[in-house]
Amino acid sequence: MKYAESGVNIDAAQRALARAGESLRSTWDERVRSDLGAFGGLYRPAPGEPLLVASVDGVGTKIRIASLMRRYDTIGQDIVNHCVNDILVQGAEPLFFLDYFATSKLEEDVLPAVIEGLAAACRENGCALLAGETAEMPGIYAPGEIDLAGCIVGRVREADLIDGSAIRAGDRIWGLPSSGLHTNGYTLARAALLGKAGLTVQDAPLELGCSLGEALLAVHRSYLLALRGLWETLGRSAVHGLAHITGGGFYDNVPRIVPAGLTAQVEAAAWPVPPLFRLIAERGDVPLTEMYRVFNMGLGMLVFLPPECDLASLPGLDAVHVGQVRPGGRQRFELIL
Amino acid sequence: MKYAESGVNIDAAQRALARAGESLRSTWDERVRSDLGAFGGLYRPAPGEPLLVASVDGVGTKIRIASLMRRYDTIGQDIVNHCVNDILVQGAEPLFFLDYFATSKLEEDVLPAVIEGLAAACRENGCALLAGETAEMPGIYAPGEIDLAGCIVGRVREADLIDGSAIRAGDRIWGLPSSGLHTNGYTLARAALLGKAGLTVQDAPLELGCSLGEALLAVHRSYLLALRGLWETLGRSAVHGLAHITGGGFYDNVPRIVPAGLTAQVEAAAWPVPPLFRLIAERGDVPLTEMYRVFNMGLGMLVFLPPECDLASLPGLDAVHVGQVRPGGRQRFELIL
Repeated sequence: MKYAESGVNIDAAQRALARAGESLRSTWDERVRSDLGAFGGLYRPAPGEPLLVASVDGVGTKIRIASLMRRYDTIGQDIVNHCVNDILVQGAEPLFFLDYFATSKLEEDVLPAVIEGLAAACRENGCALLAGETAEMPGIYAPGEIDLAGCIVGRVREADLIDGSAIRAGDRIWGLPSSGLHTNGYTLARAALLGKAGLTVQDAPLELGCSLGEALLAVHRSYLLALRGLWETLGRSAVHGLAHITGGGFYDNVPRIVPAGLTAQVEAAAWPVPPLFRLIAERGDVPLTEMYRVFNMGLGMLVFLPPECDLASLPGLDAVHVGQVRPGGRQRFELIL
Repeated sequence: MKYAESGVNIDAAQRALARAGESLRSTWDERVRSDLGAFGGLYRPAPGEPLLVASVDGVGTKIRIASLMRRYDTIGQDIVNHCVNDILVQGAEPLFFLDYFATSKLEEDVLPAVIEGLAAACRENGCALLAGETAEMPGIYAPGEIDLAGCIVGRVREADLIDGSAIRAGDRIWGLPSSGLHTNGYTLARAALLGKAGLTVQDAPLELGCSLGEALLAVHRSYLLALRGLWETLGRSAVHGLAHITGGGFYDNVPRIVPAGLTAQVEAAAWPVPPLFRLIAERGDVPLTEMYRVFNMGLGMLVFLPPECDLASLPGLDAVHVGQVRPGGRQRFELIL
């Protein structure tokens, strides 16, 4: 079972996006400091000012799990933490967040729960929930369905920017644990577990230690506190690169920050894959490479550091050494299975 | 026929939003400079710095008309111009825009057309299309359906901020022409024209001078150039208040900027209502107050100026004197029908 068979075609999306790239560029002047494919867009309002870093994302079909569980606060936390991570990988601290909530028919108990989740995560990340838009669109959304998206704006001094250009051959790659699937791959996960395997969200497979619904709803982890601690301990310049492992898995996200002429080599055997991912692979008959192309497989953040830095010795991080940067190679990322 | 009967319940939305207000406030510190209900959220990163102004919005069910017409570039322009106007009313110039495009199944010709429309409007408004998110969510969206939302960030010097607090009794209210329905009220418009009246988008009622589909797709006007001209001619401080007449019509948008203890009195007879609005009212049997509660009725922007300023004498604006600010009164807005 592959992602395309479950109803999402990553390749078609990428072809359409490639065609759109020139449109985006036609609107850019010297104030835009990022290129296509960056985790967050970089914008310098005026020379000498800090860079604004902005990103937009949606919760995807994780919302279907929330609907099945009738629990709507956690998806609010998911989208905020997801967006925080997307600008954090460029060294930015969040300033504010705006949400977009749309549904077929507004139910009065759902929206306040979503917004309380958004607010809780914003408080945890020191980020203002500045404004939002709520849309009721019968006919566009299937009955009872919801979509939730959001936009974050943060900033970073140009000297503190992390964009991967500091990555060198010999750098070691560290992984930080994820809390679960985070906010991507849910169409495939649902097709595998709720479709093919015939499970329900109430089922509690022994290896999970909780219901499938609870495991699937686990809140997307924000790495803000962990990375802030890292910057304070090692200094900003020690962090050569950061990759948020989200939609597109390892194969799409690692190459976003690795400079041409280098290969980030990650060894899958270096860390234990959590039970939920193994359950998806086994019950859904999902090929292993497809798993790493869609899911974070237990590591939501990769940290690229010079060889002398040993993250394993830092308490509370649970960092795992998962690979290294090699010179040469035709592709910027290689997974050793 | 009222909005609630066409499937959208503005009151239910407002009750849910009221419950959410406290959640938003719980995330705010002294850097947030706006209150709930502002057109755009105001954020001051540090004392003495210009204010960032941000807003998020969606195109609503105007997208259904785009689908019926198989024309997808104009809705891209709509959402950008809508957002530009929402921060413009606070005196802000746009910096960058991010889009969120979601659909049941990605068709390769639709997304590039949408993005070319976004880019065209961004170029016209001097705004960077910085980044975007594309989501394919089979099951959430009804087959073939699309949603399009976006977030804009602009900025304004604190001294140039326009928030309505300068509005005084005796100020005159001017209206600037809209290009059509802009980007709100489409659920009611579709229910009235395509539902109750049985028209199709190909029909061309004589009074419109074009097909119904073309009239309904008319691009949301950006008032950036018009207002920039106004600021240059009259000076920033002459503009006491600006109201973008969008979702919620006159009744919801005018009170957003009028200080307590004053009433903005608008005379409906002061300007001719364009044929498309009359068609909706007549064919849909929509009460007149409901029309002004949902639609812009031909005026997309209201400008509050001191009595000595005469906008009618400024060339190219087509401004109409539509009312004045009265002292006292229990409500901040009164429409004289």
